[in-house]
Amino acid sequence: MEKIRRGITAAKGFRASGISCGIKEEGLDLALLYSDVQAAAAAVFTANKVKAAPVLISQQHIENGRIQAIVANSGMANCCTGEQGLKRAALMAELTAVKLNIAPESVLVASTGKIGSQLPMEKIGPGIKEAAANLSRDGGKDAARAIMTTDTRPKEAALEVELFGQKVTLGGMAKGAGMIHPKMATMLAFITTDALISPLLLKKALLHSVEQSFNMITVDGDMSTNDMVVILANGLAGEEIIFGSREFDLFQAALDELAIDLARQIPADGEGATKLLEIKVKGALTEEAARRFAREVVRYTEVKAAFYGADPNWGRIMAALGQTGQEIDPEKVDIYFEDQLMAKGGCKAPFDPIRIGTIMKQKEIKVEINLNLGQAKATAWGCDLSPEYVQINAHYRT
Amino acid sequence: MEKIRRGITAAKGFRASGISCGIKEEGLDLALLYSDVQAAAAAVFTANKVKAAPVLISQQHIENGRIQAIVANSGMANCCTGEQGLKRAALMAELTAVKLNIAPESVLVASTGKIGSQLPMEKIGPGIKEAAANLSRDGGKDAARAIMTTDTRPKEAALEVELFGQKVTLGGMAKGAGMIHPKMATMLAFITTDALISPLLLKKALLHSVEQSFNMITVDGDMSTNDMVVILANGLAGEEIIFGSREFDLFQAALDELAIDLARQIPADGEGATKLLEIKVKGALTEEAARRFAREVVRYTEVKAAFYGADPNWGRIMAALGQTGQEIDPEKVDIYFEDQLMAKGGCKAPFDPIRIGTIMKQKEIKVEINLNLGQAKATAWGCDLSPEYVQINAHYRT
Repeated sequence: MEKIRRGITAAKGFRASGISCGIKEEGLDLALLYSDVQAAAAAVFTANKVKAAPVLISQQHIENGRIQAIVANSGMANCCTGEQGLKRAALMAELTAVKLNIAPESVLVASTGKIGSQLPMEKIGPGIKEAAANLSRDGGKDAARAIMTTDTRPKEAALEVELFGQKVTLGGMAKGAGMIHPKMATMLAFITTDALISPLLLKKALLHSVEQSFNMITVDGDMSTNDMVVILANGLAGEEIIFGSREFDLFQAALDELAIDLARQIPADGEGATKLLEIKVKGALTEEAARRFAREVVRYTEVKAAFYGADPNWGRIMAALGQTGQEIDPEKVDIYFEDQLMAKGGCKAPFDPIRIGTIMKQKEIKVEINLNLGQAKATAWGCDLSPEYVQINAHYRT
Repeated sequence: MEKIRRGITAAKGFRASGISCGIKEEGLDLALLYSDVQAAAAAVFTANKVKAAPVLISQQHIENGRIQAIVANSGMANCCTGEQGLKRAALMAELTAVKLNIAPESVLVASTGKIGSQLPMEKIGPGIKEAAANLSRDGGKDAARAIMTTDTRPKEAALEVELFGQKVTLGGMAKGAGMIHPKMATMLAFITTDALISPLLLKKALLHSVEQSFNMITVDGDMSTNDMVVILANGLAGEEIIFGSREFDLFQAALDELAIDLARQIPADGEGATKLLEIKVKGALTEEAARRFAREVVRYTEVKAAFYGADPNWGRIMAALGQTGQEIDPEKVDIYFEDQLMAKGGCKAPFDPIRIGTIMKQKEIKVEINLNLGQAKATAWGCDLSPEYVQINAHYRT
């Protein structure tokens, strides 16, 4: 398995573009992704009961497991927009389908941005036309830029893996920044691969990867109305279909790695974030418990604020663990910040203040928590909470 | 029922004091409350699985439903302190008992402050002696000050109600500020009354009141290890015991009002808070659902940041409602900010920008959400999220 420096168009047969059509005041705001042939498709959508119109439309379109294009806009979420909103999301798919000469049901639609306003179709119509004309094998970076909202940088990843002696490529792009929390938050992630795989197995692989990656990141504990993670597999890498467990396991491992790579980039660029936090929980009774502990620690507001202030406040981590309601024996908990033992058996350990001072200034800090109860483990990623986060969210205008 | 301007010593037979013994760098840090006679007692403790030593000791002491004194310190939480911490919490009760000539089991212990350090008993011993010597009918305000941590002001309330033709008084004090979230967070609340009531009925009344008040406030979504709400009823108001439903209902109503008064003061003084938010949810299918909706809206980070920025972002309220997982029909939701209809049937309403501009600048903002599904309702209180919150929590040193 080898990382390569590309994104959503790394795999064979995928083209993309990102253009500006005026939905946002400045910057690219419309992305288009196209596969030369119909692709097997799987997706995970937001668990929020208030779902944006593009989510509802895309849920319908992906039902038969085949998709050929994705159109996505930033700047407006097309959420809480009623019947009109649904019509406009469907229209985005139709306009895209006409330009690409495919069926509307082969198009997924995604939107991200502020809630409650109707999409300006007079801008989106010409935008789709321009995006279709600009599709190219090098358009991945522009597409990644066009889905950004408060993100400060595009998020891309790609890797190659050998299956059946053939090179298979996976690539992806994501956007995140705010409203990011386990179970899909204002987060869009699109992954492509030229592997040949059935929609059913693709869905199985995606669910597994999402559980280890996008569902293990948090920026602010909020869950958005628009999230989706989509994977398209167009089969252009070769004629052998992934079916047996050996190749599936290799594909799964590659997809897990790609998904974690993309997912980590989201809190690393979290709104106002200055530090990436990696929270590894070991020794839990079950994997589900390990996941809940890790996610709660990385969500806990006072833990996040302490990391911003470079305060090695392991006590708040104890409080966060206790809040989950999961089985825990406080007197067995050991907490490490990088190589420094901060708490032993739930009590303060004699850590080296100079070494910990250095650790707390790192841009990326690893915390390991051993519950010493069982064998299960999980890792979550998040970021610190800075005054800048508040400024960004106080002034993201309605 | 009539409010009076007093606190924890408003009811007959209660004395209190607050002194400084050097646990904190400055300010009062040790509070003592004493009833002239043994009082019926009931309490609710933190649901966090990591419980501070004073919580564990107090849970034992209150088992028989009779308490005569409460000793509480601020500055250190005595949490994650192991065997030593338990010994020191028990010792606080013993030292208090000796000074007051009562049994150690008649004393409750509470602590609030930073986690992980051992209490300085060489300071607390003399402190308890001084606090006992200073007990007075006018000591309520000092006691309320002595339990403060990042609070900027003491929190007190009292009221009188007539039962059996006799005047019964209820008074209380609380501290809060950070780590405040439904199900008890770094929050201490002590309530006294001279009503005559059994420990069992007192517990019933307290649980009901806590459900409407302290469990409906949030500052940052974090749950602390040290919370407790305690009520002592010493019976000195008269010889009639509350037993029948008419008097119990009156007592309950008074306790509800007092608890809500104290609880609201906590987010109003939340760390860095500039606005108090009151979120009323109507038309829910069940009361439990109404409570979850109201609490989630007031916890939702991006909602809080929007109120700080005076941005009438009703869309984020929709997202928060959807996140609860409770039954909701987005197309039936109406949202009012004070008298302004912001969203009708889940879509934007044509609100008056000038009027809403004025509302968003208020120090206290009422939001009413009608789900239009059923008859149940609930109210939650919280505050906005300001950059100041982060500064406070980044620099509250370990």
